[in-house]
Amino acid sequence: MASEFKITRMVEFHETDMAGIMHFANYFHFMEAAEHAFVRSLGLSIAGAGAEPGIGWPRVSVSCDYKRPLKFQDVVEVQLKVTSITEKAIVYGFFFRKEGEKEITALGSITVVCCTFRDGKMQATFIPKSFAEKIEPAR
Amino acid sequence: MASEFKITRMVEFHETDMAGIMHFANYFHFMEAAEHAFVRSLGLSIAGAGAEPGIGWPRVSVSCDYKRPLKFQDVVEVQLKVTSITEKAIVYGFFFRKEGEKEITALGSITVVCCTFRDGKMQATFIPKSFAEKIEPAR
Amino acid sequence: MASEFKITRMVEFHETDMAGIMHFANYFHFMEAAEHAFVRSLGLSIAGAGAEPGIGWPRVSVSCDYKRPLKFQDVVEVQLKVTSITEKAIVYGFFFRKEGEKEITALGSITVVCCTFRDGKMQATFIPKSFAEKIEPAR
Amino acid sequence: MASEFKITRMVEFHETDMAGIMHFANYFHFMEAAEHAFVRSLGLSIAGAGAEPGIGWPRVSVSCDYKRPLKFQDVVEVQLKVTSITEKAIVYGFFFRKEGEKEITALGSITVVCCTFRDGKMQATFIPKSFAEKIEPAR
Repeated sequence: MASEFKITRMVEFHETDMAGIMHFANYFHFMEAAEHAFVRSLGLSIAGAGAEPGIGWPRVSVSCDYKRPLKFQDVVEVQLKVTSITEKAIVYGFFFRKEGEKEITALGSITVVCCTFRDGKMQATFIPKSFAEKIEPAR
Repeated sequence: MASEFKITRMVEFHETDMAGIMHFANYFHFMEAAEHAFVRSLGLSIAGAGAEPGIGWPRVSVSCDYKRPLKFQDVVEVQLKVTSITEKAIVYGFFFRKEGEKEITALGSITVVCCTFRDGKMQATFIPKSFAEKIEPAR
Repeated sequence: MASEFKITRMVEFHETDMAGIMHFANYFHFMEAAEHAFVRSLGLSIAGAGAEPGIGWPRVSVSCDYKRPLKFQDVVEVQLKVTSITEKAIVYGFFFRKEGEKEITALGSITVVCCTFRDGKMQATFIPKSFAEKIEPAR
Repeated sequence: MASEFKITRMVEFHETDMAGIMHFANYFHFMEAAEHAFVRSLGLSIAGAGAEPGIGWPRVSVSCDYKRPLKFQDVVEVQLKVTSITEKAIVYGFFFRKEGEKEITALGSITVVCCTFRDGKMQATFIPKSFAEKIEPAR
């Protein structure tokens, strides 16, 4: 059972804005990258090859609190922790730190719901067993 | 005194993802565009020409709840309402609707803090009078 | 028969980078927006509702030359001109100007090929008559 | 003297579009990431800490040719080769391949000019010795 994961990535030039810092919306790209890397670490995929056919994981709620800015070429650790997993939804928490530092520079949250896509409509469904049997909340 | 504003924009191709819907992070671009258009509607600017020199508006907290997806070429109304304004911070709420529809497809929030930038450091400061005297919370 | 179109849009905050100017990759979003608006002006669509089913328009070649930077809140006119149209491909040229100015700040090009998507494979195909009968090269 | 570099990165979900493939504009993010990684590999930086103060590297011309699409979670090698270096400009060529494959899926080019930024104006200037003495064209 897995409940945590960590990725490291560097802030790229196109992710900065004219204030000289990483644009706030790009933190969600980092979080999503951590989520998908977590799923891959379980031998699974949220889409494409290796994914459950007909299943998607739309977000229903996301948030981010920013404590300190990130700058170009900062190396960032994004720690993912599973906050909760229910029959149809997973809540992930994310903790941003500069590599090697303890201070949290941002923390975020993403709630995903397992859905079927049919004729352009999404409908919540049960999380596949392949996912549910491998994921548990972090303590 | 102003407390509301509305922009209309169309979902562009590059804003969609392989699920065929607008990627969730791009909602924050729509919200920020509404915020900046609101500020322009007051004869002000948050940066560049017409802005208070040395002042920036970093985000300290953002969130979004997604009710229904948006698709390519959907025309979207983003309604901004000032939730609160204090000495140093403004909280904006955002309501997404497809043009001409009543149903809210997403709702979001952005809290900005008025800051000075000096030597790469941000420090919260009082909202300039030019802003404070024109903005009040929506009822 | 149509061969030109023009859109006007404003440079948004998230489109700038730490150099204080619009990031060079974002020019392609402006060009694509002009292309899709051109197609809509013909009563057509390149994807989604109103599009030819099973047909897509992948890019095979793009370029951009930058003469002068664009900044936050610059109002930009993107003029599209059809450079050529053959049985399966359209070449678009794009001219960027600040609103009301004659000077070209950037010029770009996008070559699209009409394709079928089947089982994840793209194959060039003839441009649908609905498109071909409405588009001609600019003189 | 260095004239080549290679980075490997994975296509992320937000980089795809509703056609199910990496959006064409995002290839320029990959190219720029390779360019900046190349510069870092020389112990240099194009901006921020470690950069030549007052110097920037705006793009004057970019292009990309697309041979085959890239999809979500494709692992991509971006090979950079210095095409030419003159007194004030560097031309980089980029070759995209899926990891472990020989076939080129895309090839691009970016021409950067070394510039001073002063009062919001850019002016071409001589490439700093720290760069010029380490970079030569690939054979």
